[in-house]
Amino acid sequence: MTASTTPHGPIYDRVALVGIGLIGSSIARAVRRGRLAKHVACWTRRPETRDTTRKLGIVDSVHDTLAEAVKDADLVMLCAPIGANADIAQAMAAHLKPGATISDVGSVKQAVIRDVGPHVPEGVHFIPGHPVAGTEHSGPESGFAELFERRWCILTPPPGTDQASVDRLTKFWQAMGSKVEIMDAQHHDRVLAITSHLPHLIAYTIVGTVTDLEDHLRREAADAGTMIERAEIVKFSAGGFRDFTRIAASDPIMWRDIFLNNREAVLEMMGRLSEDLAALQRAIRWGEGEKLEAWFRRTREIRRGVLDAGQAGTFAATEPEKK
Amino acid sequence: MTASTTPHGPIYDRVALVGIGLIGSSIARAVRRGRLAKHVACWTRRPETRDTTRKLGIVDSVHDTLAEAVKDADLVMLCAPIGANADIAQAMAAHLKPGATISDVGSVKQAVIRDVGPHVPEGVHFIPGHPVAGTEHSGPESGFAELFERRWCILTPPPGTDQASVDRLTKFWQAMGSKVEIMDAQHHDRVLAITSHLPHLIAYTIVGTVTDLEDHLRREAADAGTMIERAEIVKFSAGGFRDFTRIAASDPIMWRDIFLNNREAVLEMMGRLSEDLAALQRAIRWGEGEKLEAWFRRTREIRRGVLDAGQAGTFAATEPEKK
Repeated sequence: MTASTTPHGPIYDRVALVGIGLIGSSIARAVRRGRLAKHVACWTRRPETRDTTRKLGIVDSVHDTLAEAVKDADLVMLCAPIGANADIAQAMAAHLKPGATISDVGSVKQAVIRDVGPHVPEGVHFIPGHPVAGTEHSGPESGFAELFERRWCILTPPPGTDQASVDRLTKFWQAMGSKVEIMDAQHHDRVLAITSHLPHLIAYTIVGTVTDLEDHLRREAADAGTMIERAEIVKFSAGGFRDFTRIAASDPIMWRDIFLNNREAVLEMMGRLSEDLAALQRAIRWGEGEKLEAWFRRTREIRRGVLDAGQAGTFAATEPEKK
Repeated sequence: MTASTTPHGPIYDRVALVGIGLIGSSIARAVRRGRLAKHVACWTRRPETRDTTRKLGIVDSVHDTLAEAVKDADLVMLCAPIGANADIAQAMAAHLKPGATISDVGSVKQAVIRDVGPHVPEGVHFIPGHPVAGTEHSGPESGFAELFERRWCILTPPPGTDQASVDRLTKFWQAMGSKVEIMDAQHHDRVLAITSHLPHLIAYTIVGTVTDLEDHLRREAADAGTMIERAEIVKFSAGGFRDFTRIAASDPIMWRDIFLNNREAVLEMMGRLSEDLAALQRAIRWGEGEKLEAWFRRTREIRRGVLDAGQAGTFAATEPEKK
């Protein structure tokens, strides 16, 4: 991507990162690489993570208090798990610079508006955002400057948001390599419930089911034909299960918060999925081959759409497989 | 892999491939590369596929009848969808060379034994097999010689099978780069039901659910907040859904046959999964964050196991992303 390597003047004088995991630390690295801010400040809740961040040397200053970190910042980017947003927003409100922009990177947007919105002072611009990018790794060590390249970043500014501030934030994400889309928050939450939240829930479920299965069979002292060891499942996991284990290795706190904060949309999609699963289960039980084949042919088509949209195969390129 | 590039003498004089899709054509290419047979013959049901195979030039002879193809073969490898095995086994029985080995590449093993076993003539050795390798692409064009490298091939010889024949087939797969494991057929079917069949069923389901959702919302003439277009789902599919679309693009006939022929194990695993899914769904509805977090922490562990077993990340390496 030339976008991310082209020199930019700083887009913000001072950026404050609140929380610094995979996403926050990737922003820090991308900002430094592109010289997109004169200074990147950071605060995060755990002292150990502050120490790690200092050692990594990826930001200009690590602060022990939230107030110091956000002071004078032109852009405050909330990168903590979304369940922490309400407390953070309340605690930092009095310390924000007039005219500053608050944004975030949460995977759910209506809940962020609900939690942060009431604490945004007059004259501060609140523009929720969601970079649709990630790996299953977490923590400040796991970030990398290329994470956002060629990936979508969705901004969901409430109606009436200052346009100049939206444009500036758009430019910031584009300079990190992202493609930016403006969207209604409710719509965002429904789309992501399907494309991301539901697949993660399924992956978490199936990996847990498999783990339990071994324990169950062992307790039952099953015979050699039925006994299945976890080691075996892992060994022969190439045929599909491996993809699920990667998804199900994602950050537990982040995902707990996503499900709790996008409850309605996830439960609606989950309901639809359960019905379809029951229908396919029934088709297998009754040996309805034609029904199965027709279903499987149809699902092939949407893959072609994914390839045409250029989303396939890019994850592997930005995901260094770490142990 | 040095195994596959080290020169071997031919392991079989004549190999016959019955059916030539992704797996069959990959065997053809791997055999030629490693000079593992003096002659590779092929028959497949559809005349068009025979023509394609002739044009590809990946086998030594393409035959218009099954009888001609298997005549004088030392190894007959069944590579057609498993639903076709019974008819094929019956049709070729009279034409097999005494002392020949019949094997196959099906993802289900008890059903293959049920369908092929009764037709195996006295003096012919039947050794079912399953290379745990694949991509979502199908047809003879999609194969490649490296498909089996560093992947498991499971052989399930019935008790009493001629050991010299098993050893020879083992050597054949090893020469194509595979690691070979001998296993009981029932056990194979249960392990693969979890590691491969269930994940595929889930992926097929969720991709179908999503496709239907758009049609449904469109018919209901939903408002802008709730309306979701398939194009949008595809666009923002980076966060999990994309992995499912790849799995759900696998060959429809092959997978129809797998589900119909491993019914019991798949339905048992499916039942366990449904219960767990309902439990997580309930935890989301009731806002039970601790329960969700505990579940998600547990699933992280099994991923470490997958990485340690060296299965992760290898699919991408052997899967050229094609349009």
